[in-house]
Amino acid sequence: MPRFIRSFVFAVVLSSLSLARGADSGAIALPLDPAQHKLIETDRPDGRYLATRGFVQSLMRNVRPKLAFDPNFTDAEFVRWKAQVREKMLELMRFPAVTSRPEPRLLSRAPRAGYAIEKWEIYPLPGWAVRFLMLVPDSASSRTPAPAVVCFPGSARSKESLAGEAELNPKYAYPVHADECRMAYYYAQQGIVAVAVDNPGIAEMSDIGTYVVPGGDRTTFSRYLIDLGWSYLGCSAFVGEQVLGWLRSRDFVDRQRIALSGQSLGTEPVIALAVIDPGIHAVVYNDFLCPNIMRATVSTKPTAAGVRPAANDLTHCIPGMWEWFDYPDLMASVAPTPLLFTEGGVTSELDRVRAAYRITQAPQLIEIHYYSKYQNPESRRDGVKIPEGLDAEEWYRYANVDPPNHYFHGDIAVPWLTRVLHPLKAKP
Amino acid sequence: MPRFIRSFVFAVVLSSLSLARGADSGAIALPLDPAQHKLIETDRPDGRYLATRGFVQSLMRNVRPKLAFDPNFTDAEFVRWKAQVREKMLELMRFPAVTSRPEPRLLSRAPRAGYAIEKWEIYPLPGWAVRFLMLVPDSASSRTPAPAVVCFPGSARSKESLAGEAELNPKYAYPVHADECRMAYYYAQQGIVAVAVDNPGIAEMSDIGTYVVPGGDRTTFSRYLIDLGWSYLGCSAFVGEQVLGWLRSRDFVDRQRIALSGQSLGTEPVIALAVIDPGIHAVVYNDFLCPNIMRATVSTKPTAAGVRPAANDLTHCIPGMWEWFDYPDLMASVAPTPLLFTEGGVTSELDRVRAAYRITQAPQLIEIHYYSKYQNPESRRDGVKIPEGLDAEEWYRYANVDPPNHYFHGDIAVPWLTRVLHPLKAKP
Repeated sequence: MPRFIRSFVFAVVLSSLSLARGADSGAIALPLDPAQHKLIETDRPDGRYLATRGFVQSLMRNVRPKLAFDPNFTDAEFVRWKAQVREKMLELMRFPAVTSRPEPRLLSRAPRAGYAIEKWEIYPLPGWAVRFLMLVPDSASSRTPAPAVVCFPGSARSKESLAGEAELNPKYAYPVHADECRMAYYYAQQGIVAVAVDNPGIAEMSDIGTYVVPGGDRTTFSRYLIDLGWSYLGCSAFVGEQVLGWLRSRDFVDRQRIALSGQSLGTEPVIALAVIDPGIHAVVYNDFLCPNIMRATVSTKPTAAGVRPAANDLTHCIPGMWEWFDYPDLMASVAPTPLLFTEGGVTSELDRVRAAYRITQAPQLIEIHYYSKYQNPESRRDGVKIPEGLDAEEWYRYANVDPPNHYFHGDIAVPWLTRVLHPLKAKP
Repeated sequence: MPRFIRSFVFAVVLSSLSLARGADSGAIALPLDPAQHKLIETDRPDGRYLATRGFVQSLMRNVRPKLAFDPNFTDAEFVRWKAQVREKMLELMRFPAVTSRPEPRLLSRAPRAGYAIEKWEIYPLPGWAVRFLMLVPDSASSRTPAPAVVCFPGSARSKESLAGEAELNPKYAYPVHADECRMAYYYAQQGIVAVAVDNPGIAEMSDIGTYVVPGGDRTTFSRYLIDLGWSYLGCSAFVGEQVLGWLRSRDFVDRQRIALSGQSLGTEPVIALAVIDPGIHAVVYNDFLCPNIMRATVSTKPTAAGVRPAANDLTHCIPGMWEWFDYPDLMASVAPTPLLFTEGGVTSELDRVRAAYRITQAPQLIEIHYYSKYQNPESRRDGVKIPEGLDAEEWYRYANVDPPNHYFHGDIAVPWLTRVLHPLKAKP
């Protein structure tokens, strides 16, 4: 070290240390005590942060999405706001303009007990072919059109798993909750035309990388989509939109009775489509209702290695969305479309969505079930402000989530959707 | 497995396999042969992909950024295009509106051999305090204002490392290339007022997480910034813009002669500011010139575990930028501002930037040095189309990058910037 630097080191170090004490800086020995560092704090009298993470934390604490739902909306305000949300969501989804494209193609059709299974291929954009399955109940015909539902699987499940079919690739055969997973199959049993799609990058939409590591490289192409101005959700919702458009042209489908049903990651295209497509007749939301801004803001407790909880992966990223709204706002905008939550979520947010159904004078059209573990209000921490400083497990506790029981709750969803789509023939 | 499923398995599996052969699907045994799977291909006669990764690959192959630089621009076209690029880049950077804020504060000042070192704190936005160092040569005064340069460090280096000061936290003391790293110190030796800033989330801007794992959690807050509608680069460039505004108000600084100098990650705010700030007098770009769309498109060779190269981290993500331009386009838009590349890059892209300087009749104002290893044109693969199917090492070979020698090349940059900023007193 050159002499002139050495001679200056002490002065600089001393003056800097005296200014930079506290949570904002200073070496911290490992392992650190997570509880001691769980909050992102500053000890400066002016309340400012030197740490960029602290500054971003203050941005998140203070963000007021411009199109947040207000439970005090009048009927007219709600209608105007709902239209604004739809317009903004359409903008954020950035669906590409479709000019001309080949007709969808039927790849196979096979009879089953009470329904037929068809495999279709559509061509949403140049360079792209997308396959999906359709379960057509024998009762559906052009003379007696049936209601329909488009089903979106959880993160690393296939359309085959939704349809109760054998996996095309054994890597996607997960025994846990495999039976419960058969969303499309169960709906078809009720005389509902059930379409099952894959999540982008998964199962038949996977690259070699994800075939060997299911789900493994979705974040790479999600990132490229973002750089290109699109997003993973924009992409999955676009597939859904294309399938919906095609489905409406089937003469055995009653286009007035088309629903969406999503599990986990699959709830995201469901939200997007329910918001932007005024023709959706009902929505099954099989995940906990998650206010993502709140989750990010309170999830700050580090590991003993000093790493705070990471953001969810890039498949969930819609750049700039928080400036406008969060998922509970979007779900509120869906009112008065019949809506089912099967896995509860943060009660205060569920209450906000409920308020939208009161405003639209349709309180009977929203139905909310929690995980069994949290069905009893006494088991929940309703009314408590969720504090910062949580790790993932603590967040789930406040959000009323029971991770091992996160699967498609057909026992709740199937009778509900049957009742909504088949009002005349639903069993009591 | 229910009987009716078992009985249907063979038909579906067979029909699907016959349609889904080849690169798009099918189980692949591990370890796989990376060479065999290095290209993202489809064997469908229609050229479409079932794999979303393949579809995104075709998007990347075909993207034509709307504001790409065209070497055939006339002078007038260039001027109009340059204004469009500036406007769009300003939009993408999304600098927040600054209303009122406290005055910057001098935290410390200490004399040094030939210059003084000052530590300042500014308050760019509510909740945020940003510190930087300024090296003020003794020769700078209000009667003889000196030129100035704002210096941006590489990824995990501190402002202290740029200034040749002791680290505030020993975690940031990297011995490798530490001497060469002292960008601000070297400029100050030449009578240039040199400001040194930190990268967001690093050194004095780090959270506990990054203190214990330098650089470790930047991707988390980068992601939150993206969800909020901003970006890491928007944030670092905003700091630079705020510092520049303040620097211009110093009476010992000649505001007509303010330059930018960036190393590695620090070249990104340099690019952004050089594009949007017409008052920048010169630019030192100490990294290889990287066409990111090309890099992402050709970097497809998987590991034996089936994982293709990941995208660079979220600190580099500006959502939607590829729709408009890539870094070489941005650098071309900087013409005719004096510009130095010290680490070369992809020759065809460097040639495009050079063309901008020909159009603006300033070919002498761009200077390009390659890494020593690639200084001799014979050692480069100029004129060869860079193929898809590369891993990181192969990409570096085509891009003329010598990673172990990626550091601040003061031997090239300091005399160049001295000549540009001190045209009268530069040594021959």
